[in-house]
Amino acid sequence: MFTDDAFRSLDRQECLRFLAKVPVGRVVYTLRALPAVLPINFVLDTDASVLLRTSPGSELVRAVDGFVVAFEADGFDPVTRTGWSVIVTGRAAVVTDPAELERLSGTGPTSWMPLPDSVIIRIESELVTGRELQGMYSAA
Amino acid sequence: MFTDDAFRSLDRQECLRFLAKVPVGRVVYTLRALPAVLPINFVLDTDASVLLRTSPGSELVRAVDGFVVAFEADGFDPVTRTGWSVIVTGRAAVVTDPAELERLSGTGPTSWMPLPDSVIIRIESELVTGRELQGMYSAA
Repeated sequence: MFTDDAFRSLDRQECLRFLAKVPVGRVVYTLRALPAVLPINFVLDTDASVLLRTSPGSELVRAVDGFVVAFEADGFDPVTRTGWSVIVTGRAAVVTDPAELERLSGTGPTSWMPLPDSVIIRIESELVTGRELQGMYSAA
Repeated sequence: MFTDDAFRSLDRQECLRFLAKVPVGRVVYTLRALPAVLPINFVLDTDASVLLRTSPGSELVRAVDGFVVAFEADGFDPVTRTGWSVIVTGRAAVVTDPAELERLSGTGPTSWMPLPDSVIIRIESELVTGRELQGMYSAA
């Protein structure tokens, strides 16, 4: 019988705890009217927004600055077929406030790539949804 | 110095070899004019298209059937900061041809969820791009 029992919805706090466990997520946006996605390492800010560091001239900055994007992270175990996924949806913007940049200089995201110059993109956590998949075949 | 040397572009065959290594990827699409993403297990067909199985009444089917979507898979090692990502972009459609369905009944994707009724979605691999991240800080 088909039910959604295999999935358990996660509340916001559970979502944020899962997000804090992984270093890499995926920015989902629109580029030239087509769906686009870029995996990138991230950190969570204290207000639960997602912080990324990238090159100021990057395609990512041009595509997402000022727009609503989704940010997805997940973890799956193919043996037990269990896992979780969390999606943050909200407006993305380059951080420009000097006090914010100063604050984030220590705790903010680093890039996994060497960047001579970089900007921080903040994705507001306006909507945070997630679900946990609990041994899908155990109920089959 | 910033270069893209940390990234190596993957050719189509390399992309497909990486894709074949992982059971789960992420469908990236548009839902109510917003970017949307759903992790799901998949298999590659012999023509390198991506095959997913889901419920016929799912939001995913309504959102992607007949539209161009992206499908992303990746693998990262946070210790060495190495990894890879592959993105397939192409038209998604529910498989309806009886001969195709018969052919895929054995080799096609299974769902990680119990489904009483299901459809197979095919994402054509019209554009396949990928990159490998080789010890990003080794060049810093």
